[in-house]
Amino acid sequence: MSEKNLRIVLAARPAGWVDPSNFRLEETPVPVPGEGEVLVRVRWLSLDPYMRGRMNEGRSYAARVELGEVMVGGTLGEVVASRHPGFAAGELVVGHLGWQRFGVAPAKALMKVPDPRLPETAWLGAAGMPGVTAWMGFREIGGLVAGQTVVVSSASGAVGSVAGQLAKIAGCRAVGIAGGAAKCDYVTKELGFDACVDYKAGPVHESLKAACPGGIDVYFDNVAGEILEAVLRRVNARARIALCGLISGYNGEDIPIRNVFSLLVNRVRLQGFIVSDRMDLWPEAIRELAGHVGAGRIRYRETITEGLESAPASLVALLKGENFGKRLVRVS
Amino acid sequence: MSEKNLRIVLAARPAGWVDPSNFRLEETPVPVPGEGEVLVRVRWLSLDPYMRGRMNEGRSYAARVELGEVMVGGTLGEVVASRHPGFAAGELVVGHLGWQRFGVAPAKALMKVPDPRLPETAWLGAAGMPGVTAWMGFREIGGLVAGQTVVVSSASGAVGSVAGQLAKIAGCRAVGIAGGAAKCDYVTKELGFDACVDYKAGPVHESLKAACPGGIDVYFDNVAGEILEAVLRRVNARARIALCGLISGYNGEDIPIRNVFSLLVNRVRLQGFIVSDRMDLWPEAIRELAGHVGAGRIRYRETITEGLESAPASLVALLKGENFGKRLVRVS
Repeated sequence: MSEKNLRIVLAARPAGWVDPSNFRLEETPVPVPGEGEVLVRVRWLSLDPYMRGRMNEGRSYAARVELGEVMVGGTLGEVVASRHPGFAAGELVVGHLGWQRFGVAPAKALMKVPDPRLPETAWLGAAGMPGVTAWMGFREIGGLVAGQTVVVSSASGAVGSVAGQLAKIAGCRAVGIAGGAAKCDYVTKELGFDACVDYKAGPVHESLKAACPGGIDVYFDNVAGEILEAVLRRVNARARIALCGLISGYNGEDIPIRNVFSLLVNRVRLQGFIVSDRMDLWPEAIRELAGHVGAGRIRYRETITEGLESAPASLVALLKGENFGKRLVRVS
Repeated sequence: MSEKNLRIVLAARPAGWVDPSNFRLEETPVPVPGEGEVLVRVRWLSLDPYMRGRMNEGRSYAARVELGEVMVGGTLGEVVASRHPGFAAGELVVGHLGWQRFGVAPAKALMKVPDPRLPETAWLGAAGMPGVTAWMGFREIGGLVAGQTVVVSSASGAVGSVAGQLAKIAGCRAVGIAGGAAKCDYVTKELGFDACVDYKAGPVHESLKAACPGGIDVYFDNVAGEILEAVLRRVNARARIALCGLISGYNGEDIPIRNVFSLLVNRVRLQGFIVSDRMDLWPEAIRELAGHVGAGRIRYRETITEGLESAPASLVALLKGENFGKRLVRVS
């Protein structure tokens, strides 16, 4: 193969906001698969908020990326060469090959696309890790009960959009929180949430009060910070808060939770979770999500940038909230 | 009956710390039981931190005490007259007759002392509401796993002392947090905790680090505030925090939770609970606790003041941490 691999490595750890200069583009030989491994040409790279944590020096819930290492990331690609009997050239596989054009992985770290009828990018979005994250937060912590009110922050994002639609499918009242009228319109009109609070338009706790006249039973939290505080002012007894992300604190800011008294008085369950802790539940989650996507019950939007080189700036935009739906890079 | 009832009513709501002037002593006729009711002469009044919340104007997890109403409280007393076939004069009953010498209650709101062999005050302490609170925090949230490390704040108090001993019985490492060397000595030497951190002796997070070399798996939290923050710096993955009380915030101070990132990274479950939410579990809890008390596996200490008139100052002392074990008032 005369083709070269193109990859992006972590060049420097960010201090505060991520900057494209934290990354470096490299040209290297295409890797060669060993026994039991598969060589994949990446078509799509998924960009997700968790990546910010991996760039830090300190411990996160998963190993950090070392300087000079290829940046981590979920990918969808095509098998180019296989040294495992379970995979053949031409098959589409989901994996974690990172920010590069070609990657090698052991067969067990790859999943064949389960259903060719879905758009292939769905396996990185609503029927992939972000969708499973939404599903898991309800399964493990939130619990969806018909008639209850479920609030979702980052409601127009890859995880939040699925979370709200799962809540609707379960017969809940779904209330989104998003930044700006365009996102809020999308959340209510296209995704079918019952209401959406524009956190840029005024005090969140007042808008939440109006949007949740019966209080809040479940909060799927992608941001923590002030919005979590506002939610704690409106929670019902025995409310559940699934703490999925802390976009408001990924850069190291201290984002204390106030209204602690509400946690006690209302017997709130606040729990962090990581979607990869329960890999045993993924097949069930993906089956269910793919069914919803295929039937049009879960809809999504994508923001796509072209070429691996676009990944750094696209991640910065994602982390700054300039995002709509699932953010993807078309690699090849 | 020529005897008079003596009772203490809420005279004014506290602004910040409770003051004895918030209460008023009254002499009234002894109440007369109606059909299905029982008249009880109170022997013992239990003083507990939750009382602070009931004195506030705002909503708490239970109805507030109105101005002029008898202050609420758990009691142990003797049946004086019964208009219910299930109770007879002379029997000892646990109930919620409040801060008064005589009280009337419907039969269903009273529990006969289940075992005459235990000291009667145990039914207001280790084998009563405080003990059940400790038991419930582990049953509903904490989960005791042999070999794990359990930290308990207010470790010398009525709830904390039982919590730590239940942890030891379950085969856990129990680490207390208490104020001062005398309390810490009691916690380790008399109650059998493995270690006790004196929060008055230095930075709590450093002492906690030394006392919990393997990290913290369960935190039974009676205080919130800074100690909770210190615990969040030491929690292990999948730690559970049972939020039982907020002594540090009962006066309305804002006590934010910092180290929120730890909640996510470590998938911590932080949950408030109220012991009265699961009344269905009380019989099991009391049976188990009474067994431990009877067998000497759970030990306790009491701070007793004499006479109903002593209750206001005694509650103030309790809330200020000048407390050792279970605080009781000998009413008659």
